[in-house]
Amino acid sequence: MDYKVYFENLREQHLNELKEWLSIPSISALSEHKADVIRAADWLADSLSKAGLENVTIHQTEGHPIVCADHLHAPGKPTVLVYGHYDVQPVDPLHLWETPPFEPTIREDKIYARGATDDKGQVFLHIKAVEALLKQEKELPVNIKFCIEGEEEVTSPNLPSFLEEHREALSADVVLISDTSLLEKGKPAICVGLRGLCSLDVQITTANTDLHSGTFGGGVPNALHAIVSLLSTLHDDKGQVSVEGFYADVPELSPEMRAEFVKQAIDENKLQHDLGLDALYGEEGYSFVERTGARPTLELNGVYGGFQGEGSKTVIPKEAHAKITCRLVGHQNPQDILNKIERHIHANVPVGAKVSVVQREKGNPFTMDTTSPMLQKAADAFNQVYGVRPVFTKDGGSIPIVETFGRLLNVPVVLMGFGLPDENLHAPNEHFNLDNFDKGLLTIVEFLKQV
Amino acid sequence: MDYKVYFENLREQHLNELKEWLSIPSISALSEHKADVIRAADWLADSLSKAGLENVTIHQTEGHPIVCADHLHAPGKPTVLVYGHYDVQPVDPLHLWETPPFEPTIREDKIYARGATDDKGQVFLHIKAVEALLKQEKELPVNIKFCIEGEEEVTSPNLPSFLEEHREALSADVVLISDTSLLEKGKPAICVGLRGLCSLDVQITTANTDLHSGTFGGGVPNALHAIVSLLSTLHDDKGQVSVEGFYADVPELSPEMRAEFVKQAIDENKLQHDLGLDALYGEEGYSFVERTGARPTLELNGVYGGFQGEGSKTVIPKEAHAKITCRLVGHQNPQDILNKIERHIHANVPVGAKVSVVQREKGNPFTMDTTSPMLQKAADAFNQVYGVRPVFTKDGGSIPIVETFGRLLNVPVVLMGFGLPDENLHAPNEHFNLDNFDKGLLTIVEFLKQV
Repeated sequence: MDYKVYFENLREQHLNELKEWLSIPSISALSEHKADVIRAADWLADSLSKAGLENVTIHQTEGHPIVCADHLHAPGKPTVLVYGHYDVQPVDPLHLWETPPFEPTIREDKIYARGATDDKGQVFLHIKAVEALLKQEKELPVNIKFCIEGEEEVTSPNLPSFLEEHREALSADVVLISDTSLLEKGKPAICVGLRGLCSLDVQITTANTDLHSGTFGGGVPNALHAIVSLLSTLHDDKGQVSVEGFYADVPELSPEMRAEFVKQAIDENKLQHDLGLDALYGEEGYSFVERTGARPTLELNGVYGGFQGEGSKTVIPKEAHAKITCRLVGHQNPQDILNKIERHIHANVPVGAKVSVVQREKGNPFTMDTTSPMLQKAADAFNQVYGVRPVFTKDGGSIPIVETFGRLLNVPVVLMGFGLPDENLHAPNEHFNLDNFDKGLLTIVEFLKQV
Repeated sequence: MDYKVYFENLREQHLNELKEWLSIPSISALSEHKADVIRAADWLADSLSKAGLENVTIHQTEGHPIVCADHLHAPGKPTVLVYGHYDVQPVDPLHLWETPPFEPTIREDKIYARGATDDKGQVFLHIKAVEALLKQEKELPVNIKFCIEGEEEVTSPNLPSFLEEHREALSADVVLISDTSLLEKGKPAICVGLRGLCSLDVQITTANTDLHSGTFGGGVPNALHAIVSLLSTLHDDKGQVSVEGFYADVPELSPEMRAEFVKQAIDENKLQHDLGLDALYGEEGYSFVERTGARPTLELNGVYGGFQGEGSKTVIPKEAHAKITCRLVGHQNPQDILNKIERHIHANVPVGAKVSVVQREKGNPFTMDTTSPMLQKAADAFNQVYGVRPVFTKDGGSIPIVETFGRLLNVPVVLMGFGLPDENLHAPNEHFNLDNFDKGLLTIVEFLKQV
């Protein structure tokens, strides 16, 4: 039977199954949902078994379980490792949801629920694609492995060590991940770059106590003066980061890459208007998509110190704080960048201020060679189903685990996403367009057949 | 009878009376103490009557009452207006008090209670000094008026309009206020300068919502970058305020004034050590007491925006805030300074940021001419009792009502304080040294006799 017909026939049944899974509030960040996360893992394991996958295993970790399964009966054929996650984001503010986040509802050919697009809905496509192939062909055209975790929304603390321990068992020729988006409706995209991430906290202290500005004002250092003076040295007036060596490992954009960026160019005037901005802002000489996709950035995420209440308070604060994250590209190494920033900070501490720095996250940038045959096969599959070849995009966000997969397993990673950018992931009224649900099933089947 | 003997004989009775007053928790800032504030006003009125004062009146205001009284039977003699306050600061943190704040206790010749030195204890001296003169001489050497308010600790919101309305009734030749301190034990001081105050809030906004640093980082303005960049323009790297015209109305220090400052010089190394500072900091070319007493300052009291929780959050904040106060000197006008700062801010708004400014408090600086005969009489009285002439000090703090008295009544204001700098006013374990209680009574009697 033609796969299109096959999936049409089973559409309602599939959606009902997906609704079951989406009804389980597997919020990994909230400990009161620990039992729900386990229920969602059990549901997943059960669904993988029913689809015909073998060696279905729920691996306990120090956090939430990792569910694995495989089907390895295609000797001589490539092995595809599917990664995804069954945990979801918290749902507040709850009152902004039009229908409850864990009562999946279909409206205007979209399924609304927390996790609909990020990522249960997209993981579900892979299970049903494999099931379809097994039902229709009685065998798979490839060897396949699933590794679906329950901690993606809490930065995957236990996955890297799991991957290292099970490197052999998870070995594959390609890692296939559906946790990203099309460029827009009808315009598929394969993400070939993700920015890395590093973060740090800065604390400035001056006196051992807050001081009265009447008695001391003008005669002692003020931690807030010190921190704004220090932080203002991090950028120049052209929007570039002033930390020495920050751009050392950032490759210049090739003409080919710039051509790809032109394809994904957005209407910058409309974006500016939509965001309520007086002006977009960033490094000169780059478009918005280049700045966010292929250039690094250093952002102040929080700055605070002193009085924050109503009215005024004549205090000279003794301490001030800043939280900083960087997005990294190319060959920038998060540890190296953190060290450079820390050196910059120590070299720019104002008179009378003491500074301490705490380094936090470190995630490498991810870049895929766009000439990889696996990418081309994925592009072919998209083309077959959507009637248009996907754009190779570079995304400004960071999914550190993608780089970890590629590095530890030493294989290409294909980010074959079926979401849309406006599907409210991490926000109220998350949803998944069923048009892409249908096309996603076909695209995955096509990819597995062609690979 | 010699006044020293007179006050010694009545010491225990006087202290018991003061303890009664100090037992009333007249915390003006806390509405649950409204009845206590009224009780304290009643106690004061009663005490003034018993001392022999006339026309004792409790004036209702929109807040707490103002208690007035007078004794005007010395035709041809000067009129002295005594100002003070019977309200007190809140008492938290309560657990740091060695004895409860409203159970006055005498230890090591100090009376411990909230309000002991600020300002019930010092107001009480004036009542008992007048009572002593009336008992011993049957008449007063001057005309005297009392105006004691209950809202000093909440910035006297109703006193200026009261003074304007009762300008005639309160007319005097000198205003006498005991709400300040000696320089140190045995070293009396008359404060001849108080800094003015002005304050403002600054808000920066960029986008209409917080943005994700992955999707947008590097491509849009960040409200925190904008505010640190803006705030860092407010000072130069020598500790001077960079706002154009900020110092226009600041008089240069005369050799005489510098000589007075040398007398009140402090050990700057010890201060730096006590405050846990790596360095004192401020305008070059001035000592600490000059910087805090005779130079203006602009202080950031609070700066905040974005994420302040544990860990990190990849947010580009849409808004950021700053709270600023200035201490003013000489002829600086708070409204003029606020306008200059506001102009500076609007001229330095970074690209993509919108700024709004809210002007708040405005209090003029206060300066007394040190050659005023009233000041010299007060100095003579101190000399008589303490055996040493007082230093004329300039204080970094602000008591805007002092300037208001001088300006509205157009008379000299004598700040004849009997506190000590370490008596914990506004803090736990506030106390008043009884040595200065005794000497204060005699100094006031002496002043009233000599004036």
